[in-house]
Amino acid sequence: MSAPAPVPAYNIRFVIEYDGSHFHGWQLQKPGVRTGHSELRRALSLILGNDVHPIHASGRTDAGVHARGQVVNFSLPFLPDLPKLSFGVSGILRGKIAVLSADVVPNDFHARDSALRKQYSYQIVSRNPPPVIDWGKVWHVRRHPNIEIMQSAANALVGEHDFSSFRAAGCSANSPVRKIFESRVTVKGATIEYTVVGSGFLRNMVRIIVGTLVDLGTGTIPGSMQEIMDARNRGRAGVTAPPQGLYLDWVEYP
Amino acid sequence: MSAPAPVPAYNIRFVIEYDGSHFHGWQLQKPGVRTGHSELRRALSLILGNDVHPIHASGRTDAGVHARGQVVNFSLPFLPDLPKLSFGVSGILRGKIAVLSADVVPNDFHARDSALRKQYSYQIVSRNPPPVIDWGKVWHVRRHPNIEIMQSAANALVGEHDFSSFRAAGCSANSPVRKIFESRVTVKGATIEYTVVGSGFLRNMVRIIVGTLVDLGTGTIPGSMQEIMDARNRGRAGVTAPPQGLYLDWVEYP
Repeated sequence: MSAPAPVPAYNIRFVIEYDGSHFHGWQLQKPGVRTGHSELRRALSLILGNDVHPIHASGRTDAGVHARGQVVNFSLPFLPDLPKLSFGVSGILRGKIAVLSADVVPNDFHARDSALRKQYSYQIVSRNPPPVIDWGKVWHVRRHPNIEIMQSAANALVGEHDFSSFRAAGCSANSPVRKIFESRVTVKGATIEYTVVGSGFLRNMVRIIVGTLVDLGTGTIPGSMQEIMDARNRGRAGVTAPPQGLYLDWVEYP
Repeated sequence: MSAPAPVPAYNIRFVIEYDGSHFHGWQLQKPGVRTGHSELRRALSLILGNDVHPIHASGRTDAGVHARGQVVNFSLPFLPDLPKLSFGVSGILRGKIAVLSADVVPNDFHARDSALRKQYSYQIVSRNPPPVIDWGKVWHVRRHPNIEIMQSAANALVGEHDFSSFRAAGCSANSPVRKIFESRVTVKGATIEYTVVGSGFLRNMVRIIVGTLVDLGTGTIPGSMQEIMDARNRGRAGVTAPPQGLYLDWVEYP
């Protein structure tokens, strides 16, 4: 007897935007918990008529974290009309998830494992009163951090380092070493933006970095970013900045 | 008998920011309808222990319209601690209204009657799929209007003109003549911003102008902005753009 003919598979990649305030994070959880993953799976399955699973993402985002360019991939036994599929998913998930682009990629493409670099940005508003129009999309900080201190602290992160000080309890990564290509603080009016490009990030790493930048800038914690990094001790770093100011901007692939 | 001693009055001016999606417009309506005015009155009255009324605004904003710098004034028989009052109001109305500044102004100051110029801006996002992160804060337009046509149409509005073509039914203004100081279209990525500075605006005037700019830019309506203005006929202009893209930026006084 000959082996059964292989089922053809099409590996589909989506670049998606989402507003994290609608979800309990990206990652699939137990039934009834609405996550980015569960919503995308629901919309795809509704349109295509069969359960689409698994869906791989470039990484999990925490509850409340937004994405301007999250990348996901999933396999289908047939090739759908990609513009129609994108349009349908963006329509079903209107105001929550939008499909920015869709293409067919080689079968060995994996949104997480193939990723080379990612950019996150973080929005802080330092003013009184709290912001209203950007409410839920930024971190409101009452005190005014010293920007030059924040900028030089951000610079210290560039390079390959052990980021144990910026790793949440329960992080499952094997190694705490990551490579940071860019790390910078810019200011526009009352908005302070932190942008970071890295090979990958530990659990809560960007949020702990941002909390540390602010705590250093306001003099809430002692020492320098270099000393905190060298300590390899989460207890030396600052607070974990809240999720709603964080945006996954883009993911780069070969 | 001598006349009773006059009650001293302090005329207080607030500059406020609000997210219009929380209100059925600015203007006070019947009890139970939440408007910007009713919410501000409620918070002021809670803090000061007596009903604060009337509150004058530089102008009404429609349901869903936002303000980055609306100006209001109201009279009090005593002088409160203004920083504490601002802080309290912004706290009670957290995420809805924020008091950006507060000062005592001469008794003849009136937020509407004393206004010299106002700036509105309008955010359009022209892309597919619809925006997600800015959902509810912009007008999503599927078609891509021609930007040069929009810019030259915007230019035609500068000067003193009869704006009858851009006036909603039911507008109660005595004269349809207004003076426009600036009117410009700028583009950043998929976002088209329209900014207009004028002596004052008729009911729905900015929203009808924006709808007309888009309809001219997509070729949906015939003619030029000059011809539409000269017609003094609402029927010649374009659609009324939805409220959620409109922002009252600032109001200027002598």
